[in-house]
Order: sequence, then C-alpha cells, then structure tokens
Amino acid sequence: MKRVAVILSGCGVMDGSEIHEATLSLLYLDQAKVATQCFAPNKDQLDVIDHKTNELISRQKRNTLSESARIARGKILPLSELKVDQFNALIFPGGFGAAKNLTTFALDGPDCTIDAEVATIIQQAIAKSRAIGAICIAPVVVARALRDSGVSPRLTIGDDPEVIEALRKMNAEPISAKVSDIVVDEKLKIVSTPAYMLATGIAEAARGINKLIEKVLEIAPQT
Amino acid sequence: MKRVAVILSGCGVMDGSEIHEATLSLLYLDQAKVATQCFAPNKDQLDVIDHKTNELISRQKRNTLSESARIARGKILPLSELKVDQFNALIFPGGFGAAKNLTTFALDGPDCTIDAEVATIIQQAIAKSRAIGAICIAPVVVARALRDSGVSPRLTIGDDPEVIEALRKMNAEPISAKVSDIVVDEKLKIVSTPAYMLATGIAEAARGINKLIEKVLEIAPQT
Repeated sequence: MKRVAVILSGCGVMDGSEIHEATLSLLYLDQAKVATQCFAPNKDQLDVIDHKTNELISRQKRNTLSESARIARGKILPLSELKVDQFNALIFPGGFGAAKNLTTFALDGPDCTIDAEVATIIQQAIAKSRAIGAICIAPVVVARALRDSGVSPRLTIGDDPEVIEALRKMNAEPISAKVSDIVVDEKLKIVSTPAYMLATGIAEAARGINKLIEKVLEIAPQT
Repeated sequence: MKRVAVILSGCGVMDGSEIHEATLSLLYLDQAKVATQCFAPNKDQLDVIDHKTNELISRQKRNTLSESARIARGKILPLSELKVDQFNALIFPGGFGAAKNLTTFALDGPDCTIDAEVATIIQQAIAKSRAIGAICIAPVVVARALRDSGVSPRLTIGDDPEVIEALRKMNAEPISAKVSDIVVDEKLKIVSTPAYMLATGIAEAARGINKLIEKVLEIAPQT
C-alpha cells in the first residue's frame, strides 16, 4: 500500500489551508485506499483572519498544527516528524497558509523565505524521486524550495500575471492550465492543479484535485 | 433550480461543524448544480477545543459565524437572515457544534435547550414540507426542535446506546443504519446518515452523505 503525507498549514483559506482542497485531497486518497498521514508545522500562524469580515483578529494567536488538526480530525503529526523515506508522495493543499505559514510569499513574493522543515522535505522528496502534488497557490512553496537547486519545475498557478511572474523569478516554469486540469512535470514527478486560483465552485476544484491525486499515485514510486 | 441552505455551527469536529461532513455536503450539492447558501448563528461558540491535544483553550472566544465562514469561504449569512420560504431544503452537518452551539445536547443530553433561531427554522421547514438532511449527531438538533410538536421523526444516530436513548426521550424514533446508509422519514421529509458517528474514514462518511444529498434533493418540493 502506498503511503502519502498531506502537509497542512492551518484551517481556512485566508490564514491556513484551504479547507475544501485539503478535505478533497483526503477524500480521494481514502477512496484510492491509500494510507494517509497529515502533518503541519508546530508554530504560530502568521496571522488570524476573520473569514466573515476578512479583518485581522489582531489580539489572537493560533498554532498551525492545532488548527490543521481540525481538518485532520486530530490525526496529525508535527512536520518535524515527517520522514520522507516512509512516504511515496507528498500533497500540499493551497490556501494562504501556504503563502503565510509555509513560506512568506504573501508578504515577500518571489523574495520570500521558506520554513526550513518544509524546504528540507521537498528537497528530499525530489532527491528520492517521490511524487509531489501541489494545489492552488502551493506551487509557490515547491518553487521556493527548489529555487536554488538548479532545476526548473513545470507548475501551474492560475492566471494572475504577478503570481506567474513571481513563479518565474523563483526559477520555475509557469504553465497555463484550465480550472479542472493538471500540469505534470514528469521528470521531477510534480503534479499541480489551479483549484481555487481559478475555480468558482467546489465541484470545479474537485475535478482537478481528483485528477491530481490519481496522477500522483500513478507516478509515485513503489518503495 | 432548487435552493438549499446549509446550517453550520463552527469549524472543527470538537467545537463546531465536522469539516469533512460540511465540505462533502457542499461538494455533492454543487455537483448536483443546486444553489447553496451557508448560514450560522452569529454568537460565540460554547467553547474552543485544541484539536491536536483535545484540551480546552480557556482564554479564547470564537464566533460561530466567523468560524463557519472558514468552511464557506466567506460566503455565509447569519442564521437570523434565513427565510425558510426561499429554500427547498435544509442540511445540518454534524460535529460537536450541533451539540454545543445549535443545542446544549453535549452538556444536557435529552434535557438540552436549542438555539431559538434553529428551532424556528426546523419547525417552519416541517410546517412547509421542506426537506431536511441531518448528518452524524445533527439528528439531535432536529429531534429537539420537534420534541414538543407531536411528531416522532425517524432518525439514525449511530450505535451509542446513551445517544439512542436520548433521541427516544426527545420523542424521536431511532433507526439503526449502516455507516454509509441513510434513513428516510418519508412523511416528514427528513433524511439522516451516521457519517462520523460510525465512519472510520472519510470515504465511508462520503458515501452516506452523497446518498443523503441525492435523497434530500429528490424529495425536496419544487417551490
């Protein structure tokens, strides 16, 4: 049985993992009878956004691991415990958490920093030919992790010219894709889909995520 | 086009809506091309639970509407604005939010109180022959709303003898169902499914929720 790690970054599109993208990833992995383990960094989120008003809740701190545990129903481990050797593939759902808690892309664009644990697991996954699935904005995390490694991953990221240019500045190759399609970098074994970078509803996002999970499981190595 | 209201109670199984059940409800409604609107009570949650440690975060308040907005991606209205006339059906996902924020079932069992707005919309839905879908623990909300109305809704609620007995004490008729099955009260147009009362994984819960949404849409009146 293949084993897949899902890396979360909080709970909610504006400050954490996009909930639909994370939940649908878990659904399609479970339907494929894959053993899945969620992980998240054990650190405070960059911020907390009221998802009704879009305002900053400035007085409040939330822990990325504890909030991600809402999506994982408690079955989650700190990212520091992720051993890439034990998994065939990694999945990164989107949401601003990818650009606030896994990297600082939301603040710094292509000059962003990346969480050291996140960078290491992505670099190890590439070195060990594990498959990676990156949904919505999460391709920026993959691009940043590989920025200085001499490879140029083919990734899709929606249609915002600024984000596309940022991806290019991080040495990735942005590829246009329709909302429910996937882009596959066969050499690096990286699959991406636009999901809510383009989707206007959950059914649209779901089609691309379903394809992404199928492709990731197809190209993930037996270990 | 049929219109369905999804009533949320926070964001996370231990203190709000069960995220997978709510997300999958939205997925199957969108796949059926139904117009969906989320609602939640605009009031503080009963409590906030750290979903990694299961401990109470005693220093923190969270608003049920703002947290529910995480699942709804901001597209949510206060429950006070729900006009039953404008919808063909209501869906109640599970999670402790149903037993903490919509009712006090988690504290008081069959002697629980119910949020006045929630009671009213369920009673109006029954009076106007709207369809109702109740997932996981949410049948206790429906039972409590109808407790003193002279009807005895047929509802499934999992296999915990104490919860089954509580449902009976609220004048409902508990019906046993397998994890991925539904129970239909044809007369009252109420559909229920055990979901995470019994499910050990998201794919199991998804099968029952998919059937529930299909059945609710089938029996929901044209208005």
